Amino acid sequence: MIDGKRRTIRRAAIALTVIATSILSASILAASFVWAQPNPLPSWNDGPAKQSIIDFVARVTTQDGPDFVPGVERIAVFDNDGTLWCEQPIYFQVAFAFDRVKAMAPEHPEWKGKQPFKAVLDKDMTTLAATGERGVLQIIAATHAGMTTDAFSKSVSDWIGSARHPRFNKPYTDLVYQPMLELLAYLRENGFKTFIVSGGGIEFMRPWTERIYGIPPEQVVGSSGVVRFEVGPDGKPVLAKLAKVEFVDDGPGKPVGINRFIGRRPIFAFGNSDGDLQMLQWTAAGRGVRFMGIVHHTDGTREYEYDRKSPIGKLDKALDEGTNKGWTIVDMKRDWRVVFPEN
Amino acid sequence: MIDGKRRTIRRAAIALTVIATSILSASILAASFVWAQPNPLPSWNDGPAKQSIIDFVARVTTQDGPDFVPGVERIAVFDNDGTLWCEQPIYFQVAFAFDRVKAMAPEHPEWKGKQPFKAVLDKDMTTLAATGERGVLQIIAATHAGMTTDAFSKSVSDWIGSARHPRFNKPYTDLVYQPMLELLAYLRENGFKTFIVSGGGIEFMRPWTERIYGIPPEQVVGSSGVVRFEVGPDGKPVLAKLAKVEFVDDGPGKPVGINRFIGRRPIFAFGNSDGDLQMLQWTAAGRGVRFMGIVHHTDGTREYEYDRKSPIGKLDKALDEGTNKGWTIVDMKRDWRVVFPEN
Repeated sequence: MIDGKRRTIRRAAIALTVIATSILSASILAASFVWAQPNPLPSWNDGPAKQSIIDFVARVTTQDGPDFVPGVERIAVFDNDGTLWCEQPIYFQVAFAFDRVKAMAPEHPEWKGKQPFKAVLDKDMTTLAATGERGVLQIIAATHAGMTTDAFSKSVSDWIGSARHPRFNKPYTDLVYQPMLELLAYLRENGFKTFIVSGGGIEFMRPWTERIYGIPPEQVVGSSGVVRFEVGPDGKPVLAKLAKVEFVDDGPGKPVGINRFIGRRPIFAFGNSDGDLQMLQWTAAGRGVRFMGIVHHTDGTREYEYDRKSPIGKLDKALDEGTNKGWTIVDMKRDWRVVFPEN
Repeated sequence: MIDGKRRTIRRAAIALTVIATSILSASILAASFVWAQPNPLPSWNDGPAKQSIIDFVARVTTQDGPDFVPGVERIAVFDNDGTLWCEQPIYFQVAFAFDRVKAMAPEHPEWKGKQPFKAVLDKDMTTLAATGERGVLQIIAATHAGMTTDAFSKSVSDWIGSARHPRFNKPYTDLVYQPMLELLAYLRENGFKTFIVSGGGIEFMRPWTERIYGIPPEQVVGSSGVVRFEVGPDGKPVLAKLAKVEFVDDGPGKPVGINRFIGRRPIFAFGNSDGDLQMLQWTAAGRGVRFMGIVHHTDGTREYEYDRKSPIGKLDKALDEGTNKGWTIVDMKRDWRVVFPEN
């Protein structure tokens, strides 16, 4: 009897161990071989675009292959507006600036009679357009400067949490591209470090990129205004945002921004407009195998349809160069099974 | 017999599984509990400095404790010159610039009769000092600009691989502080992301920080010159370094650099001079528990002894403020068992 009991206990213990091992092994396998999942990019339709991504990742991660790239050098850069999220009918940061003008108007009664603010308050886009670049800079200065970095960050978070897109009637952060979210995750699972390199404001993106894209603030490169260290009357140090442009991370500024912030050349770059051309060229000009991708907005039904003549996200020279050089051109209508996250 | 054989096979299989489980569990434990190693900072003598580090790390990593900080927010910043490596008798980057003047002199015969270059070539430090800031900027411009980023990076790597410190007769990268290497590793094992925030040139540090400190280029913040994207006559894009200062990452520039590059406030900062004061203040002013550390150079025998009156690495205001506010002041002579790596 005693022997039998002991045996039963021992067997139970062994059985538990075996079960624990299976669970453990399963999770370890899951952790190590995520890249081997049967369909890593479920929102991408099968076709040359999806295949080019999977082939590239396989080549640079095959340990003994001729194109292997060590983990630390797997740098992937993504434009944001029109590449990771929608940029129509106006850049979302511009929508933010307009909403801020409205929100700040009670503290600025003089805006009722002063352009370009009057035009924003009156929703008079013709007059606003006539104020040109100078008008836009005045709006940016009024809504993005004259406050601390902390106060600005809070105004962005508040807006992102409450504003809604005029056509889709959804929070702007719901208008990210599901296929690109999967691509970001797929690259990270394969040892890539993912960066945003955007013409948008660096301080406009950082409050939400980690939650939405899994990209932490220190991996966000963008345009910036001058910031100054000041010690307040209470002895507390603050960073004050000044109304002076510091860096424009667009066009030829993108390789400069990559050099400044990342300090090594990416092996993978994705954009959607001529403003990304130099970033793609800079990526392409490195040694070894490279991936250059362009999102072509071809789907007016599910999203927007625009390219060579669009004032926002103009895609002309980069479309020609990408086509000629065999870069991956994503045809949104054909290549994406879904556009926005379904939940 | 057959039943007995089956049982033996089954038992053997179970035994193997149990062994595998033990090995697996052991490695998992090893991976998770690195921080619990008996002496994580062997080159630090026991005392308040070492204890303050260990206590801080324990507090912010204790999952259910009141001071727990999530992994993504464990940002640690380190000054470089005088904090991670030696900065005497002159900043190593200045030694690099002087050596470059000598190396480039054959292509610049006019330098033999032109200050400040003549003074460098003649090793005439009195005349050189008399050329002041303007002279230094001319030397920096001649040795750090007028070339591509790739060419500059190569000149740094070549120099770092061959130049030797005048007193210790060792490569400059051997003159890093062993206790700080251990501290960097200890923080990373505890989920911290380690950054350099230095007044030194960002492009001067990046070619070697990953190999020496385990800090990748994208986690190096420093001073910079303007860089321009250009397409060469062969159609290849390059980044040209111009003779124009872009950003000085020193003093009040350090919190600005932290904001620009990292985009969140560190919870841990280490410096050694008044140029680090604002970085330490900025770190201290955040919410929750914080660590501020200062290396005080008190060891003229093993390294150098200097503070309030030194033209290089002057430590005066920060020493007072750090002492008053209870920051960790490392007394090199007392707190460090070894200074430089022994192998």
